[in-house]
Amino acid sequence: MQTHAIPRYPDAGWYDALERGAKPALGEALTLVEAGGAEGRALLDRLHPLGGRAQIIGVTGPPGSGKSTLVNELALHYAVAGRRVAVVAVDPSSPFTGGAVLGDRVRMARASGNERVFIRSASSRGRLGGVARSTFDFVRVFDAVGYDPVIVETVGIGQSEVDIWRIAHTPIVVEAPGLGDAVQAMKAGVLEIASIFCVNKADQAGADAKAAQLAELSDRASAHTPGWTIPVLRTVAHEGTGIVALAEAIARHGDYLHATGRFKALERARAIAEIRTGLEALFVDAPMTRAHRDGILDRLADEVAMRARGPASAAQEIESRYLAGRATSAQTP
Amino acid sequence: MQTHAIPRYPDAGWYDALERGAKPALGEALTLVEAGGAEGRALLDRLHPLGGRAQIIGVTGPPGSGKSTLVNELALHYAVAGRRVAVVAVDPSSPFTGGAVLGDRVRMARASGNERVFIRSASSRGRLGGVARSTFDFVRVFDAVGYDPVIVETVGIGQSEVDIWRIAHTPIVVEAPGLGDAVQAMKAGVLEIASIFCVNKADQAGADAKAAQLAELSDRASAHTPGWTIPVLRTVAHEGTGIVALAEAIARHGDYLHATGRFKALERARAIAEIRTGLEALFVDAPMTRAHRDGILDRLADEVAMRARGPASAAQEIESRYLAGRATSAQTP
Repeated sequence: MQTHAIPRYPDAGWYDALERGAKPALGEALTLVEAGGAEGRALLDRLHPLGGRAQIIGVTGPPGSGKSTLVNELALHYAVAGRRVAVVAVDPSSPFTGGAVLGDRVRMARASGNERVFIRSASSRGRLGGVARSTFDFVRVFDAVGYDPVIVETVGIGQSEVDIWRIAHTPIVVEAPGLGDAVQAMKAGVLEIASIFCVNKADQAGADAKAAQLAELSDRASAHTPGWTIPVLRTVAHEGTGIVALAEAIARHGDYLHATGRFKALERARAIAEIRTGLEALFVDAPMTRAHRDGILDRLADEVAMRARGPASAAQEIESRYLAGRATSAQTP
Repeated sequence: MQTHAIPRYPDAGWYDALERGAKPALGEALTLVEAGGAEGRALLDRLHPLGGRAQIIGVTGPPGSGKSTLVNELALHYAVAGRRVAVVAVDPSSPFTGGAVLGDRVRMARASGNERVFIRSASSRGRLGGVARSTFDFVRVFDAVGYDPVIVETVGIGQSEVDIWRIAHTPIVVEAPGLGDAVQAMKAGVLEIASIFCVNKADQAGADAKAAQLAELSDRASAHTPGWTIPVLRTVAHEGTGIVALAEAIARHGDYLHATGRFKALERARAIAEIRTGLEALFVDAPMTRAHRDGILDRLADEVAMRARGPASAAQEIESRYLAGRATSAQTP
């Protein structure tokens, strides 16, 4: 399932190509970052000073809302306008195959054929928060190398989606007529931080009712966003109808974020998540990986599972084996 | 939203009550564990030797499948049979309120009135993987104090749900006629590790088609579970129809897990997740909390957001301030 090789010895030419946003180097960089190792972290550090410019657009909606088609059309809209646009499609990965499901990529064939559009699926690396972390890291890479906007497409139901949702500057909820109470499942945590509501398939029966329902939610949710009234837009994505108005609302929302300082506040929240990730990489991922390689983790897991010892005691053994001396070496005067 | 106070000085009497599974102490224990501090971790350690017995049943399904009603009836079935049963309802928490949504608890009023049933919502503690961690910890507590089975109800779409799903001994996918392609969104990672399929609302039109669809999936997925053919059951949960057959299939699956050693393999996987959590608590949660209290995190977040330094460098400052000496103190000879 690996579609990009990891460059074994990235050289100056490779970094130059990457920083220009060249697609082959970019694909390799994402793979490197997704692998979660020291090289990927070093790359993110190197790219960090270049980032902080892209508008991150979250697009979420229940299955059947047509959000992939909408993302496809929106990406094309930006590409045609001369902007380079990235799409991160968030799919739960399969525990069986370890790989991401490619469905979304297939559905987005139209945009992916465009040279200004880069589409990538984010998969879990098989641990808690894995898909959210991959998504965060991908967004950092795209942002740093000049892709703007970065569109993150999620299913919109579930805790990881809420985590991902929180990094979006401009979160858009897509609904469609006739989806029943799917919206109910999204209400908690997702609807409440939307900045734009969109009724897709607006040519179908029931669109007015859906728009009225969202308008009511907008009235309530807008109370939390002083200076911004959440618009309820209508699109027919497969015909391209309403895409320009949607892009216009996204641009207005970007202006609002910058004017009110909210853009900066969101960058700070992302920074805290990234600092946390840095600690996890050093003190959790690295020793767990080493303990696994040495067979220590297997033994500890057996002991814990057999109730011969507790997980805290097992964690202490990993600490003393792999982390002793680590922290003091960085001690400040 | 806090419904249980945290006991300030848990004494021997409190521990006795908890280990007997007494409801007030149990509610307090869950709150303590959910808070994620040192006291909660110490409590989990103390309870650890008592656990490893309960069958963990995962129930997932799209909105509208009636899975909450099904869980309600299943819990009552066990309670009437004299067993103590726990339900962990996994809801994404609202980023606005910081609290869990109580909808599921309200819907499960019937079971929650029973003295042998304990229902609790798992919420995120506002960080990556938060809801999954709360769920894992709740299951550990219920298991240790004699609740068996422990039923975990999730929405079934999203990465956290896949994470949670992986700890279930007996994962059940609930579907219902007329839900369209909601099942499509669940396929990746959720359907593939189901042990039982259930068509709820089986008295409605389209039940046969849904059952046929699931039977086809069962044929494919059963290839991954040698010795276990995934049954496709039919229920009408709000009438209680099919609940006994479902409980019987759950019991058969439990026997299968024990006979094949799969139960132990799942316990090992849980043990690894718990060891990881132990490291995170010491090396990530604790220093991040301290850095936040001291105002250091705010400054670092600003510097990272302004691109004055990278997140890795900020993580190193936290390391040197709060972790220096920590690892060596536990050094083994």
